Amino acid sequence: MLRTALILSLAAAPALAADPAPVPYPEGYRGWTHVKSMVINAGHPLHDAFGGIHHLYANKKALTGYKSGNFPDGSVIVFDLLEAKTADNTLQEGARKVLGIMHKDAKKWQDTGGWGFEGFKGDSKTDRAVGKNATTACYACHLPQKDKDFVFSAYRK
Amino acid sequence: MLRTALILSLAAAPALAADPAPVPYPEGYRGWTHVKSMVINAGHPLHDAFGGIHHLYANKKALTGYKSGNFPDGSVIVFDLLEAKTADNTLQEGARKVLGIMHKDAKKWQDTGGWGFEGFKGDSKTDRAVGKNATTACYACHLPQKDKDFVFSAYRK
Repeated sequence: MLRTALILSLAAAPALAADPAPVPYPEGYRGWTHVKSMVINAGHPLHDAFGGIHHLYANKKALTGYKSGNFPDGSVIVFDLLEAKTADNTLQEGARKVLGIMHKDAKKWQDTGGWGFEGFKGDSKTDRAVGKNATTACYACHLPQKDKDFVFSAYRK
Repeated sequence: MLRTALILSLAAAPALAADPAPVPYPEGYRGWTHVKSMVINAGHPLHDAFGGIHHLYANKKALTGYKSGNFPDGSVIVFDLLEAKTADNTLQEGARKVLGIMHKDAKKWQDTGGWGFEGFKGDSKTDRAVGKNATTACYACHLPQKDKDFVFSAYRK
């Protein structure tokens, strides 16, 4: 009886206790549409995490989201962060620091606004920087963007 | 007789005397593959012409050229130059300054390495910055890149 009760208890555990579903690596994203770019320099509050030059890419579903304001399930936005190398009055792209991902699935990632958040370190497709910590590491900062479906960027023509 | 001679003379005029064929505006280039980006700051020798943040885009044929080193006819490379606005330790994209184009057709633009060169001012699809001056305004600087089919940029993974 104790064993049965334990099994029932586990089965009824709230969804919050479960680890979030892993976010897949965005294969082929370099062929997706370039949304916009930006450089974050030393002295900026986000420099430790996001210093360098970053480019945002959107798959076809995410592009419809940028236009309508509502991102359908399957939307993927990639934040591609590279080192910024300055020399001879230029700023050039250096090594990849991290590849940040937002992957929309309203059911799968219901605890973080319907978005799965992940970061792949450097050029790795497996070395994850976020994992179970999406709520504190990503979602908390995206929360104020709720009226834009938690997305900061806008498509730059 | 004089008239006939004149007509024959005109018909035999060297190709150099003809204006280059106009380079078409690259419709849909914002959906093409992003090749790489760079910032050119004040103090750089090219700052007057190309100061700001630029992105390079390639259509599918040009992508094969970046990989093989030989760009097939129909390859189009776009140099999208935007103002670089610096504030609060960031560099952000501003207004479009010029859209530079290289369009490959070995016959049509045989006098400039098989490439048609053009610049569209700002967001205009008709206001041309280069026109008849491609040889001096573009090709002269691209000439040293002959072993790379006159292209400066390389695809950044």
